[in-house]
Amino acid sequence: MSLLKNTHRFYGSSSSAVTAQSWIYAKVFKGEPTQQNFRLEREDLPALADGDFLARADYISVDPYMRPYMMAYPEGTPMIGGQVATVLDSKNAGFPVGSAIFGQFGWRTHTVCNPAKLKTDRPYVLPDFGSLPTSLGLGVLGMPGNTAYFGLSELCAPKEGETVVVSGAAGAVGSHVGQIGKIKGCRVVGIAGSDAKCAWLKELGFDEVINYKTANVYGELKKAAPKGIDCYFDNVGGPISEAVIKQMNVYGRIAVCGTISNYNTAIEKVTDPLRQMVFKQLRMEGFLVWRWNNRWMEGIEANLRWIRDGKLQWQETVTEGFEQVPQAFMDMLKGGNTGKAVVKV
Amino acid sequence: MSLLKNTHRFYGSSSSAVTAQSWIYAKVFKGEPTQQNFRLEREDLPALADGDFLARADYISVDPYMRPYMMAYPEGTPMIGGQVATVLDSKNAGFPVGSAIFGQFGWRTHTVCNPAKLKTDRPYVLPDFGSLPTSLGLGVLGMPGNTAYFGLSELCAPKEGETVVVSGAAGAVGSHVGQIGKIKGCRVVGIAGSDAKCAWLKELGFDEVINYKTANVYGELKKAAPKGIDCYFDNVGGPISEAVIKQMNVYGRIAVCGTISNYNTAIEKVTDPLRQMVFKQLRMEGFLVWRWNNRWMEGIEANLRWIRDGKLQWQETVTEGFEQVPQAFMDMLKGGNTGKAVVKV
Repeated sequence: MSLLKNTHRFYGSSSSAVTAQSWIYAKVFKGEPTQQNFRLEREDLPALADGDFLARADYISVDPYMRPYMMAYPEGTPMIGGQVATVLDSKNAGFPVGSAIFGQFGWRTHTVCNPAKLKTDRPYVLPDFGSLPTSLGLGVLGMPGNTAYFGLSELCAPKEGETVVVSGAAGAVGSHVGQIGKIKGCRVVGIAGSDAKCAWLKELGFDEVINYKTANVYGELKKAAPKGIDCYFDNVGGPISEAVIKQMNVYGRIAVCGTISNYNTAIEKVTDPLRQMVFKQLRMEGFLVWRWNNRWMEGIEANLRWIRDGKLQWQETVTEGFEQVPQAFMDMLKGGNTGKAVVKV
Repeated sequence: MSLLKNTHRFYGSSSSAVTAQSWIYAKVFKGEPTQQNFRLEREDLPALADGDFLARADYISVDPYMRPYMMAYPEGTPMIGGQVATVLDSKNAGFPVGSAIFGQFGWRTHTVCNPAKLKTDRPYVLPDFGSLPTSLGLGVLGMPGNTAYFGLSELCAPKEGETVVVSGAAGAVGSHVGQIGKIKGCRVVGIAGSDAKCAWLKELGFDEVINYKTANVYGELKKAAPKGIDCYFDNVGGPISEAVIKQMNVYGRIAVCGTISNYNTAIEKVTDPLRQMVFKQLRMEGFLVWRWNNRWMEGIEANLRWIRDGKLQWQETVTEGFEQVPQAFMDMLKGGNTGKAVVKV
């Protein structure tokens, strides 16, 4: 449990005018999640006390991390995760009625929250996104965007002219990482799971793309990264990462953001990477984005600037309907999304 | 080839009063080295030119790194490595006759060297070791000592009260790392390959020791490190490291110094460590000690101080005779040594 920085909290019991719907983690995941892992519940929310506000979910996030994280929770726990919501009623001056906010409220339609009672994961009012949709607060202007921004710049620290490889490249984080790599003047190679995804990455400016489902990743990387690999931003783990790590240059940096290749399966055996680590003096660091909580708005503002300057593009895979949240989650884990996967409530 | 920071150079041709003997890498290593991999050659050294000195080897170092490093050299290359030598003749004021020096001269009895002609790996006059043997310039007061000193302090940065695990614990580097861990106020667990080695490590002050040849490493580690592992200094790689990495704490640091478990064999498959890396936010860094060349004397002086203060003990496994260098090397690779393996010429 101690590894969980991002826990879900909500407040609500009975006797209120508002009824929330909430997706519950009904059965422990085994392999790929199915509908049987989830159960929909209803819950009457309480009247607001001083400091509370009532929020209605507009967009709910489905993210890869939820699959491994939930394994640490007992059956019957509400599903965790972020949402972009609108404040419907408020007894909290910091969250006025009508404001668009981000909150770690989980998979639920309505939430009563008093931020002062939360030790971590406090909700925040979204910065002014201008004409951009508020759903970006779950993606390029939220957690995945900050994951890309801080993970790449702080842990890989790519220098102009270096070669950056990113796996899971067509996901919310991967597509963003590659574009920052281009902004920094690097050669960028993306690894993704379909020709359509690869085509989109080329549109974003990736120098080379590899469809791992049809190509020999090791061999294609040799061609795509002829000077070797200086930075590897990893979202997948497993055999793809094995192929990348073998081609790292001396003093290469590896940021390990996720290992989606083994979230639904047992962890595979791979060639022990430690010998590569020694003789090439590689540095590898795994991370959760919450470590940069104290610089959160810096990341959002930097990404917003790049969007406005036309340097950063984004894509969303939007599923409609609160009842579809589990399905959107299952699809995302199988790579069904391009860019950020969200559910419009 | 670019990974080799430590290349061997020597100067010598014909027409001199001094004949050197030199061990040549005669056949590419396959599996465990045998006598057939080596050939002894004689070579007449030239008369000294301005800037040259002539050195006679007193102690020759055999180190694990030589096994993988030599794979990058063609057959017929002189064997690489450090030696402690005495200057017999000199036309270089910095290396007066009689001085005890360290040089990267390889497995040879006599060397003519002009340091100014070397870009890297310049020889140096040993600091005053007092009554300590000069052979320590190959061990606790040389490359292995600095490997332990810088590798642990710079990459693991252990804090008082943390748990440090070291593999290859009875070797030159491992036994030193564990003692620094104790100096820093840590709980130290050593993993080594015999009961005799383990007994010696207990004498050095290690809190717990595990004989990996007879124990279940994973299970024994659970008991030996009940609060989990904060720092892992790895000399071996492979399944032992797999067992350690699974028990690292959040924000754990792993310094990968060597992977002797696979120097003589194919690299094994292990459970992909990347998922551990992410969710525990681990940092792993492989290193070669030459990265701290500019702080070399700092390390030697710190280790010398600890020896004089009675805080740092050392042991050597000394083989006698220049003709025994290959045998000493082969024995060391199989764990035959306790502490630093050297050959007295």
